[in-house]
Amino acid sequence: MHHNLCFIGFGNVARSLVRLLERKREALESKYGITYSVTGVATGSHGFAVNSDGIDVRQALEKVESGKSISLLSTFQVDDSLSVIQHSSASVMFENSPVNYDTGQPAIDHVKAALNAGMHAITANKGTVVHAYRELTALAESKGRKFRFESTVLGGSPLFSTFREAMPLAELISFKGIINATTNLILSRMEDGESFDDAVKYCQSIGIAETDPSGDVDGWDAAIKVSALATVLMDSPLKPQEVERKGIREITPAMVNQAKAEKKRWKLVASAERVGSQIKARVAPELVDSSSPLYGMMGSSSGLTFTTDVLPNYSVIISEREGMKGGPEETAYGLFADFVSAVK
Amino acid sequence: MHHNLCFIGFGNVARSLVRLLERKREALESKYGITYSVTGVATGSHGFAVNSDGIDVRQALEKVESGKSISLLSTFQVDDSLSVIQHSSASVMFENSPVNYDTGQPAIDHVKAALNAGMHAITANKGTVVHAYRELTALAESKGRKFRFESTVLGGSPLFSTFREAMPLAELISFKGIINATTNLILSRMEDGESFDDAVKYCQSIGIAETDPSGDVDGWDAAIKVSALATVLMDSPLKPQEVERKGIREITPAMVNQAKAEKKRWKLVASAERVGSQIKARVAPELVDSSSPLYGMMGSSSGLTFTTDVLPNYSVIISEREGMKGGPEETAYGLFADFVSAVK
Repeated sequence: MHHNLCFIGFGNVARSLVRLLERKREALESKYGITYSVTGVATGSHGFAVNSDGIDVRQALEKVESGKSISLLSTFQVDDSLSVIQHSSASVMFENSPVNYDTGQPAIDHVKAALNAGMHAITANKGTVVHAYRELTALAESKGRKFRFESTVLGGSPLFSTFREAMPLAELISFKGIINATTNLILSRMEDGESFDDAVKYCQSIGIAETDPSGDVDGWDAAIKVSALATVLMDSPLKPQEVERKGIREITPAMVNQAKAEKKRWKLVASAERVGSQIKARVAPELVDSSSPLYGMMGSSSGLTFTTDVLPNYSVIISEREGMKGGPEETAYGLFADFVSAVK
Repeated sequence: MHHNLCFIGFGNVARSLVRLLERKREALESKYGITYSVTGVATGSHGFAVNSDGIDVRQALEKVESGKSISLLSTFQVDDSLSVIQHSSASVMFENSPVNYDTGQPAIDHVKAALNAGMHAITANKGTVVHAYRELTALAESKGRKFRFESTVLGGSPLFSTFREAMPLAELISFKGIINATTNLILSRMEDGESFDDAVKYCQSIGIAETDPSGDVDGWDAAIKVSALATVLMDSPLKPQEVERKGIREITPAMVNQAKAEKKRWKLVASAERVGSQIKARVAPELVDSSSPLYGMMGSSSGLTFTTDVLPNYSVIISEREGMKGGPEETAYGLFADFVSAVK
């Protein structure tokens, strides 16, 4: 079946996704009978384009990556993201606009517009899940479409889809893990003798920490992911503000060295547990020893251990690999997997 | 939809599955619209029974567990497993007969009979995958039925299903991990000062090692699992004999202590890698350090790291949990998940 795709947000992740789709074009057709055209693109600062006959994606990538506008590729004048959705004739929308943790906007409005127009809506934007999971899921169901967000936690690795497709009727009792790669890399570098400030600077230099690193180091990013996981996998809406939260600023080099001497490590551990009808959720530094699956997760690795009524301890870990900086390519794969799952 | 189920083999795993199905009966109906009856049971030494109106499973469990025959529960005289399949009116067969590593029989014949009779065939038997994966998969496809075997590797945790359902078009380049829990427990206990012989005896005492432990300690069980993984996930039929194989008998207490002093550990590592059109597969003891995801996998834990073209390092780990001895219950969940996936 042929699918017209529109991209709302065209940063690193969306462009990696376009390249991945191109690379897998033949396999998509031969294995799943899926063909596609890109019929809408909305960028943050390089304009907007729709073309129901298909936009030349190589040109679109080239223009954006050389700082030019894509508006000349458009067959119809569009001036904002919602217009791109309306006029793209798309059956699938990929939402990758910048995250707003407080409101989830404008991503939520993009998802709603896409679903209302009969499209599947696929996003890497945590704000949509944290602020509107039930509403968007109900809207998608009422329209016979899918709302998917695999890439919001643990990069593009299968997690929500594993629970949905491969662990039927498993009841999630609790989970625990490392879900913020930046703080894990900072703590790893501190173990190697670097100061906190230098480790933060290193993370900024490789592009995994923001100029203001507080979202990571104060535990907000982890709290938002805990909230997304609890909301979806435990079916218990939980706001990031309800997660007990402590970051890593209090972890001193002396504490890191002391732990090392005891063959332990400080990790920023995120966890949630069902207690009666409540979810008790927490993000805080914890000392772990070598019997913990978290102990071996160094650098920008991340991972989670799930306790369910059917499998007592099931862990998923995404680890660093020398010479391969996951990042946007992995996140793009989560969106790709969501696409196949939604349309196949 | 209603399903008649038959059980070929009624040991710990099959009986755990019956209990799990009973526990999830309401959820199966409310979430998936699945109802079921058990209409055929073949045991190793407690007789055979078929009843197209449904066998009372509580009675069947009770009889077998108190050493009695189930044949009085039968409405029709059946004397062997193939007759149970033929006369069970089942739409799903669960195959849990003892594994024969050399031939895969009689499990392969059970699977063929079930598929030919129009049933889905679900098994925890590695022999069927290693000896007849392509043949059974082709037969299942020709009949519009499913051949499923989630529980053959890493207990009942999702692995084959994750690749099948949640990682579309991911190309598996290599994998590496610990897939024999018994040897991992032996090596863990040796690190705590126990001798090899005492550790083997301990494993025998808790029922995870056989009287003849050579299948585990010489690496055969791991080699068979490597072969199943490569055959299915790399689409490259690989016989256990083609896996380069070395067990743990040469690992001395001195070696374990030396590793410990260097903050390393000996692990029986199973791996396979695509090299050109060949698969290079290996089971052998390796020294791992704390940067490896294998380092923290102690006791009867097991796990695998997968390198794919889309996710560089994706790991799945099943770890021990105090007071919960996974074993048959976890394996049963893999069969349960296969059942839901096959019929939903």
